[in-house]
Amino acid sequence: MKRVYLDHIAATPVEPRVVEAMLPFLKEKFGNPQSLHSEGQEALEAMEEARAKVGKLIGASSEEIFFTASGSEANNFALKGLALARREKGNHVVVSAVEHQSVLSSARNLEKFGFSSTLVPVDRHGLVDPEDVKRAIKKETVLVSVMLANSEVGTVEPLAEIARVCRDAGVPVHTDAIAAVGNIPVDVDALGVDSLSLAGDQFYGPKGSAALFVRKGTRILPLVDGGIQEGGRRAGTENVAGVVGLGKAAEIAISGLPERMIRMGQLRDRLIDALPRLVDHVLLTGHREKRLPHHASFCVRFVEGEAMLLSLDMKGVAASSGSACTSRALKASHVLLAMGVDHALAQGSLVFSMIDGATEEDVDYLLDVFPPIVERLRKMSPLYTEFMKESRK
Amino acid sequence: MKRVYLDHIAATPVEPRVVEAMLPFLKEKFGNPQSLHSEGQEALEAMEEARAKVGKLIGASSEEIFFTASGSEANNFALKGLALARREKGNHVVVSAVEHQSVLSSARNLEKFGFSSTLVPVDRHGLVDPEDVKRAIKKETVLVSVMLANSEVGTVEPLAEIARVCRDAGVPVHTDAIAAVGNIPVDVDALGVDSLSLAGDQFYGPKGSAALFVRKGTRILPLVDGGIQEGGRRAGTENVAGVVGLGKAAEIAISGLPERMIRMGQLRDRLIDALPRLVDHVLLTGHREKRLPHHASFCVRFVEGEAMLLSLDMKGVAASSGSACTSRALKASHVLLAMGVDHALAQGSLVFSMIDGATEEDVDYLLDVFPPIVERLRKMSPLYTEFMKESRK
Repeated sequence: MKRVYLDHIAATPVEPRVVEAMLPFLKEKFGNPQSLHSEGQEALEAMEEARAKVGKLIGASSEEIFFTASGSEANNFALKGLALARREKGNHVVVSAVEHQSVLSSARNLEKFGFSSTLVPVDRHGLVDPEDVKRAIKKETVLVSVMLANSEVGTVEPLAEIARVCRDAGVPVHTDAIAAVGNIPVDVDALGVDSLSLAGDQFYGPKGSAALFVRKGTRILPLVDGGIQEGGRRAGTENVAGVVGLGKAAEIAISGLPERMIRMGQLRDRLIDALPRLVDHVLLTGHREKRLPHHASFCVRFVEGEAMLLSLDMKGVAASSGSACTSRALKASHVLLAMGVDHALAQGSLVFSMIDGATEEDVDYLLDVFPPIVERLRKMSPLYTEFMKESRK
Repeated sequence: MKRVYLDHIAATPVEPRVVEAMLPFLKEKFGNPQSLHSEGQEALEAMEEARAKVGKLIGASSEEIFFTASGSEANNFALKGLALARREKGNHVVVSAVEHQSVLSSARNLEKFGFSSTLVPVDRHGLVDPEDVKRAIKKETVLVSVMLANSEVGTVEPLAEIARVCRDAGVPVHTDAIAAVGNIPVDVDALGVDSLSLAGDQFYGPKGSAALFVRKGTRILPLVDGGIQEGGRRAGTENVAGVVGLGKAAEIAISGLPERMIRMGQLRDRLIDALPRLVDHVLLTGHREKRLPHHASFCVRFVEGEAMLLSLDMKGVAASSGSACTSRALKASHVLLAMGVDHALAQGSLVFSMIDGATEEDVDYLLDVFPPIVERLRKMSPLYTEFMKESRK
């Protein structure tokens, strides 16, 4: 059966050229980059080449890139490492209400070490107001963390303005740019951030390869203590093949990005325009324009996200109802609730996120199979029956 | 030129069957294991199969295995996660003096959170005396960590006895078994440990794939907070290909282990017997019998480890002078110093560690090229010249 993969936010396929670049490091080039011999030297050189490529993708220099095993690890590293390094200065962090769980949980866990945190609200599009960040900053604040783009609703935050507010207050700012990097232009200087996390599986690199940018001169404590890898900031034998794959993916992501964004945006808009015309009681979530080019998200009333996903899967369509990191928890999304979406509607969350190679036919196929799925599921919904009875009165 | 790779402790090559098993997950099977659709389900099933295989390798059940990105991460997870989860019970940990940096640094970093630690000494073979562990345990002690085998000197610790002492005192015990798992039989019940770390790159699996065993019912806090992956104990999108590779490597490691140990042991003994006969002033480090079968380590007086490594590399031999995690730091090994090796002699540390497929010819080649290297280097050593002058008197 035809498969249409619309779950970029969970994982992209790995670009064939990326796999190609990785293979030698899973085969003959198996040295440990910390070894002094030729095998080690070869691995080290490949890692440093990859580091430069990842730096280039976000306008950073090599020595500002620290490899990690996941975006979540990069966020933990940033939140805990930056805050704990500033413990004598203060014990307060500011994060937005729509951050990824890895940021929210890290902020929460800092409480065990004497920190408190303030959640900055968002508007109904999921946008953070820089003025709210400004108000949340206290004299004890040592870190602000606001994401660049939200993977659940696609909204792209006004991060440069937010960072300016933080800079004016003398507070370092981290951004979780995992959903953004490789998909929209990201430049750490234009953004004015002190640290930034990215993950290969969001731009056709391998899973298990991610990185944290830490601006030169910014103090950060390691999350993983031990050896001298990554300049002593992240111990552990390096995943050389993964790192090389991340570098190759970064290199590929740079080329042709504007064209890719236009193509993705056209498919997205086709979907966003058509879906609410084909299905009743559908709400676009996130901002209409300030959103990721590959991302279309909705809430469908009277139907549960999980049921739609399983039905779509049976029709050959892979989609998600939010972050993969919480999908099996089946709780209403904290992102949607923070945006003021009511609890019942939030249950019907759906995200369609396109990958390279997606076509108009893919979108049309979805538009074809989706309405009957919703119709069938609603017939089984007591709430919908009730609603229809009421509305007929 | 002929290459003889004798640096197992830095990294093993990846078994071709392991690469084969990983490839589909770098290519067509790219789903996120947390996704509810078919692509996700397929990845999840592969991960769970790998989890069972890793469990089997150490006599644990699937749900006791938590994947990490490195042995160092697993050690950090254990030390910090087990200690911090017992904070109300006490604030003292016991570690041996010859632990890996990831254990020692984790113990040291716990001090920031109100913990103190006791270092248990070792004898001149690097052996920990269970009675010393017993003496180090106080009523505030919440964790003991002693490694199973030391990668720098090859010594295998009497861990079952050490664990018994801890159990009697009601204190959980972690073991860093990274150098051991896959190379000697390891069974978590026979050892009686509560947690154990292992890494794929020590038994022909990929770099970036490791695991922590945590005995059922043992409380541990996450190191990486966030999503619901790994039962909520280690957030982050899983490195599916790496995990699958680790599983395959575990499966392969079980079969034929006794034969492999015998073959390795013969090569090791050939080297250990011959080298001190061919080169003056050479000391075997670690215990003669209680050592890893693939591991021969020495200290060579009047020569620096780094110089020997570079000269060996030029002759086609890859070896190391200790842990890869500190090799480029070029400091005298804390392991050797703890064993009472004097500082000058510790500078001449060398580790030859065999990988599968190593032959008698490889060992003989080393025995052939090594003596002239030492001779040449010693000629340039003022200390050696001095010594020779003295001894001629």
